[in-house]
Amino acid sequence: MFMAKDAKREGRNVKREGSAISTIIERVLKDVKPTPEEIRITTNLANELMARIKSVAPRDVEIILAGSVARGTQVRGNSDIDIFLLFPKGMSERKMEAAGLDIAKKVVDKKRKERFEIKYAEHPYTKLIMDDLGIKADIVPAFKIDDAQDMGSAVDRTQLHNNFINSNLSTYQRDQVRVLKSFLRFHSIYGAEAKTEGFSGYLCELLIHQYGSFEKLLAAFSDIKLPLCLKPIDRSEIPNPDIFKRFKSDFIVLDPTDSGRNVAAGLSRTSLMRFVMSCRIFLSKPTIRYFYGPEYDDERSAAKMDEISKALGAEMHTLIFNVPDVSEEILWQQLKKLEKQISGRMKDSGFEPLLAIESTYGRYAAILFFTSGYNIGSVLKKGPSVLMHSASAAFVKAHNKSIVRLEGDALSSIERSLYSSPEDLLRKALKDKSFTFPSYLSKSKAKVVAGRLPEEYARMLYRRYMELTNI
Amino acid sequence: MFMAKDAKREGRNVKREGSAISTIIERVLKDVKPTPEEIRITTNLANELMARIKSVAPRDVEIILAGSVARGTQVRGNSDIDIFLLFPKGMSERKMEAAGLDIAKKVVDKKRKERFEIKYAEHPYTKLIMDDLGIKADIVPAFKIDDAQDMGSAVDRTQLHNNFINSNLSTYQRDQVRVLKSFLRFHSIYGAEAKTEGFSGYLCELLIHQYGSFEKLLAAFSDIKLPLCLKPIDRSEIPNPDIFKRFKSDFIVLDPTDSGRNVAAGLSRTSLMRFVMSCRIFLSKPTIRYFYGPEYDDERSAAKMDEISKALGAEMHTLIFNVPDVSEEILWQQLKKLEKQISGRMKDSGFEPLLAIESTYGRYAAILFFTSGYNIGSVLKKGPSVLMHSASAAFVKAHNKSIVRLEGDALSSIERSLYSSPEDLLRKALKDKSFTFPSYLSKSKAKVVAGRLPEEYARMLYRRYMELTNI
Repeated sequence: MFMAKDAKREGRNVKREGSAISTIIERVLKDVKPTPEEIRITTNLANELMARIKSVAPRDVEIILAGSVARGTQVRGNSDIDIFLLFPKGMSERKMEAAGLDIAKKVVDKKRKERFEIKYAEHPYTKLIMDDLGIKADIVPAFKIDDAQDMGSAVDRTQLHNNFINSNLSTYQRDQVRVLKSFLRFHSIYGAEAKTEGFSGYLCELLIHQYGSFEKLLAAFSDIKLPLCLKPIDRSEIPNPDIFKRFKSDFIVLDPTDSGRNVAAGLSRTSLMRFVMSCRIFLSKPTIRYFYGPEYDDERSAAKMDEISKALGAEMHTLIFNVPDVSEEILWQQLKKLEKQISGRMKDSGFEPLLAIESTYGRYAAILFFTSGYNIGSVLKKGPSVLMHSASAAFVKAHNKSIVRLEGDALSSIERSLYSSPEDLLRKALKDKSFTFPSYLSKSKAKVVAGRLPEEYARMLYRRYMELTNI
Repeated sequence: MFMAKDAKREGRNVKREGSAISTIIERVLKDVKPTPEEIRITTNLANELMARIKSVAPRDVEIILAGSVARGTQVRGNSDIDIFLLFPKGMSERKMEAAGLDIAKKVVDKKRKERFEIKYAEHPYTKLIMDDLGIKADIVPAFKIDDAQDMGSAVDRTQLHNNFINSNLSTYQRDQVRVLKSFLRFHSIYGAEAKTEGFSGYLCELLIHQYGSFEKLLAAFSDIKLPLCLKPIDRSEIPNPDIFKRFKSDFIVLDPTDSGRNVAAGLSRTSLMRFVMSCRIFLSKPTIRYFYGPEYDDERSAAKMDEISKALGAEMHTLIFNVPDVSEEILWQQLKKLEKQISGRMKDSGFEPLLAIESTYGRYAAILFFTSGYNIGSVLKKGPSVLMHSASAAFVKAHNKSIVRLEGDALSSIERSLYSSPEDLLRKALKDKSFTFPSYLSKSKAKVVAGRLPEEYARMLYRRYMELTNI
């Protein structure tokens, strides 16, 4: 119903009234802030749902609205409702989970074309899908806590986040969060899930709180100096080098409700750097067009992928899968893991991929490798320094059937390549029992495609390619 | 006349009488120590030549015998004579050089089938070639000095080296020097010239002086720890880290006649490391066969190179040259320089050579590249870190027509390759005016050979391959 995509297209067609950043942000905000109508419907629905839950839940269960709707930081078309059922501490987790599911199930109104799915995060929870309205509501059981120290599970933290944001963000800043989330989403780095490894909603809220506005955040990040540890609770920075060792990270955003937690822990280096680059590009030439990210359509994807491959002078080798109906999160984790495994083996075999792209769509999944046109006979295998006495002896012994080369300190050996091409490597990986694939990426349901792709796979890969190559 | 090669073959055919290192060294010494006959002939000839020179030289010119013959450290078949004409300091260098050549020329006795060549080191000098005896004598002009401080040119230092070695090495140690020189020569790391970048004769003498014997030197170097600064004048080591900075090296052998000079300066890292590996291999399994290095013959070299290329699964691409009659030293310098240039360009173009081998023989020169069978479309060009603000902006701008990739901090771009194969690269290098070749390696006299080589080029490359791949 509230499609952000429409907002996006609308934004694009608007004639620019000025290129000042503030003008652009105002213009974007008109596109991405939920309409009063959307807010009204969402609020009514949330209230009505909470009332329904109250009528079936035990009296000691507290029912709260959480997430971006509760905090007023949701983006148009993303008004999904999060309702938390807070059970008293002391109950067993199992019992709490079962009771949570039971309550949620009772609330589903089939007459209103509502249905539900059980989802699994840290605890199982219920996703209520209201097809008529195009809105979903997550009904999540947790324990009631007042302090992070009492926390049973990560889910329990949400109520504390709610409190912090609601007490600390101004109305202006909530809109700034909406602008930030949209910018990140249009540049494919919004969301902490495995696919994106980007900025979570809570991280966006804390960053706006820290810097005051979207524009100030852009300015700060475009000239970011690492290591950097932000402390949103008093909007300071912690210069102590020990903290970077403790968190094993050089970009830390301390959770104001739990100073032992880095809210940016799930943000990948690449996503952080893509944001830094995006900040710079946007600040140096602020346009609505850049804000909205790359344009593309899904028509003729196979042909377009072919064109890209030709323009790169690269060959396409793709592993395609039929996958079971599992959570996207787990599927993406497995796709990324497998991509890294195969890329590593390709590199060792002398054909490092120029670019690897994973994607999924429903029951389809694929990993595409762009490689240069190789036909490998042998590869150089790096060995240790001669100065590492026993390691170098072991290396020479292990490679006594091949040519061992010495250049400077470094030993290396010239090894017959196991694979003649990326295609050969992929085909053998599907047969090689010692090369294990993650569970949902079944070898028997996988195929190797060299060159032009079937359209359904091309479409999702083309889309992902467009997302990834817009720095 | 005194062919070391014969000694080598003789050594090989001897049945081993014991594998203790001392037994092997004794056995080797019988092969490589000049025979009493060789020493007698050489000494007589040196004395006779010096007398001839005395009769034509001015009285203020001192005539001394230098080099390994004077020091008693020469190896069988390498009894070339070095005679230094020491002119009084204060003379102009030009005058000294001219007088030196003049004196030498007068000494040549054409009736005894003697001829001469003018050679160029730091000063021009005369090489007297006695074809009948198979002996050569270098007649080198220099200034007479007592101290390195008074030194006019590097040549002048030789007389000081002579004095040091003659005063400090025992008869036993002179034989140990012969063993060391032979071991190094059989493993292709003896000699400081550009081809080998190995151990000079003087460096061998100082190392035996420092450690006392060949076996002790092997033990020390097989477990070498760098940085290492040897001070032969008192057989100590200098642990001061500053000295490594001053000499810009982490392996230093201070000249006992001039503590401002590193005698090991011309020793390449690779040659030092090849010695270290050879020490270890020999000590762990001492055999005469290993001492004498790899066996090979020059028959059917082209076919053998073909076999090697097939065994490696590698392609051969060779630049062959007809070169003018210039000093080997300069030719090797130019070959190595050109090899590095081309290897660098190959690497940038996506086909790093597995192995590159230069060689020369008379008027022939060649550089062979073993490469994997590539057919490159595009290459990954590494860029700066996003954290380098202006450098990353410049990189993105410079590559705005290609795909810029971001992974972690690092930018890279996918670039269309300039060359489709190593052969393509070599052919274009011969035509590309911006790719300059060193002077004696004339493009117009160069050819590219893909695959099997003409026998004359194959022979010298096969020999060099055998030298280089025996770690």
